[in-house]
Amino acid sequence: MTILVVGSLALDSIQTPFGRTRDDLGGSAVYFSAAASLFDRVNLVGVVGSDFPQEHLDFLTSRNIDMRGLQVAEGKTFRWSGRYDYDMNTAQTLDTQLNVFATFHPVLPEDYKDSEYVFLANIDPELQLEVLSQVRQPKLVVLDTMNYWIDYKRDALTEAFRKSDVIIINEAETRQFGKTFSLIRAARKILELGPKVLIIKRGEYGASMFAAGHDPISSYFFVPAYPLEKYQDPTGAGDSFAGGFMGYLAKAGPISIGAMKRAVVHGSVVASYVVEEFSLNRLRTLTHNEIHERYEDFKHFSHFERFSDDRRPQSQVWADLAARG
Amino acid sequence: MTILVVGSLALDSIQTPFGRTRDDLGGSAVYFSAAASLFDRVNLVGVVGSDFPQEHLDFLTSRNIDMRGLQVAEGKTFRWSGRYDYDMNTAQTLDTQLNVFATFHPVLPEDYKDSEYVFLANIDPELQLEVLSQVRQPKLVVLDTMNYWIDYKRDALTEAFRKSDVIIINEAETRQFGKTFSLIRAARKILELGPKVLIIKRGEYGASMFAAGHDPISSYFFVPAYPLEKYQDPTGAGDSFAGGFMGYLAKAGPISIGAMKRAVVHGSVVASYVVEEFSLNRLRTLTHNEIHERYEDFKHFSHFERFSDDRRPQSQVWADLAARG
Repeated sequence: MTILVVGSLALDSIQTPFGRTRDDLGGSAVYFSAAASLFDRVNLVGVVGSDFPQEHLDFLTSRNIDMRGLQVAEGKTFRWSGRYDYDMNTAQTLDTQLNVFATFHPVLPEDYKDSEYVFLANIDPELQLEVLSQVRQPKLVVLDTMNYWIDYKRDALTEAFRKSDVIIINEAETRQFGKTFSLIRAARKILELGPKVLIIKRGEYGASMFAAGHDPISSYFFVPAYPLEKYQDPTGAGDSFAGGFMGYLAKAGPISIGAMKRAVVHGSVVASYVVEEFSLNRLRTLTHNEIHERYEDFKHFSHFERFSDDRRPQSQVWADLAARG
Repeated sequence: MTILVVGSLALDSIQTPFGRTRDDLGGSAVYFSAAASLFDRVNLVGVVGSDFPQEHLDFLTSRNIDMRGLQVAEGKTFRWSGRYDYDMNTAQTLDTQLNVFATFHPVLPEDYKDSEYVFLANIDPELQLEVLSQVRQPKLVVLDTMNYWIDYKRDALTEAFRKSDVIIINEAETRQFGKTFSLIRAARKILELGPKVLIIKRGEYGASMFAAGHDPISSYFFVPAYPLEKYQDPTGAGDSFAGGFMGYLAKAGPISIGAMKRAVVHGSVVASYVVEEFSLNRLRTLTHNEIHERYEDFKHFSHFERFSDDRRPQSQVWADLAARG
């Protein structure tokens, strides 16, 4: 299945306690595409300026990413500059230059309009709605956003939520949109708008998933973050998570709660690699075997029954306690 | 197996956004005992003043808790007063009155000295060492502590760590003791002292477990917190967690990594109930069936393979990707 992504292509300048980069490849659509294309074919819609290095275009093309939806506009490419301190959960934006992104309107090539898997990366919700108005019969629409749009474009964002199947946002954004500290209540508010699934990114702790049409508990899922010793740059972790998530779903076939859970794990695996190095350098070398390895690790982190060292099954303990009354 | 606990019995005055209590039953040994006694027999060592209400003693005695190790001293019982804001991860201490606890030295009744399961609740590490010097051949020693002892009694605490099998502390304490922001590195430092397992309590996110003698990844385990809509008072959550953890282990028999993981889940289950109501009120009514129910919920939150809605096994997806190269 081909995956359509609409989002930003950027030149990022990043500072973390472990180093810095200047005008390196970045942007939500770039991280997403590089991650999702590890699983399946990606159609990319976005805009760059005439200063965008050819080597970056070559890299994306080399990665099973269709670039016919990319607009090259007169002017400079979108630039973002940010820094992270030792608590790498939150970026501090130093500078944002929209440049050619300021007047961008997504235009889908004719055959992109039949895309079944659509990822609306974090851009103006009005543009997200423009994309949806061009897609004919999407099977799964996944949306990301940020605090800025919750503050300034709440109505358009709410409309975009209504038309999406899966929302992937972070914990603070969930509370902000839901206007409550309780994640369960915030989740319920969001799911009542129409999305089937809400995935909450929780930084160094991992990610939670709530599904609609179930009571919140029976559909809850939580995957921890992979415990990392090397952790250089969190930029793009969320978009790579979304890329791994959707790439897996597009590849795995029928969509079910179980498939969604495993997709969340695949998203976590890909994101865990991305943050090990600056920019998307780690995505350039990441192999399927490496993904599979950490997927297996996640089973050990999360599953707590049916272990080989089981000498006394859980059911026996419960039988004993029941006998005791 | 009988479990020995040494810790505080207190009269707590608590304020949270959801209400307040005054001089209500509390203390680390109390929460621990009330939780662990849901699984197995508990021997309690501690001290109260002559003002300690008889009804609290009656409650503990009614709960399969042996009180022969309790000292009743002239004077007032230990009192703690604290408040929590909406972010209920951290308590703000308003007042601490040590009272009879200031001169407390644990004295084990003769038959307590053969205890196999020992919980050293959060008290002065010098007292924790006094307890260990009286126990003959413990099978499993579990220790809790707090930032104060890391700051002011680091040497004694390090010695107590060396003599313990399992350390249960929170995330900030782990980083503080390890003198590093990296939890993995901090965990390694603590495990190098001798403990076999480190369990890190992470508040609303859950708990992590690292085991020694493995590389950090292969032994890592993470259990999320139970997603709660009703959450009134986090006091005692950590001690109840330890109580569920040890109660399960004492009941379940052979100690293995798998049993430890399930014990962590049982600790999380018990703690999830405790915080629903003030003081240990919820522990007064908690049943085995309720514990079992949430244990099953935790499987749904954490396991991501072998679901009934599986229509396409994970292995097939991986075979496809491998075939693609």
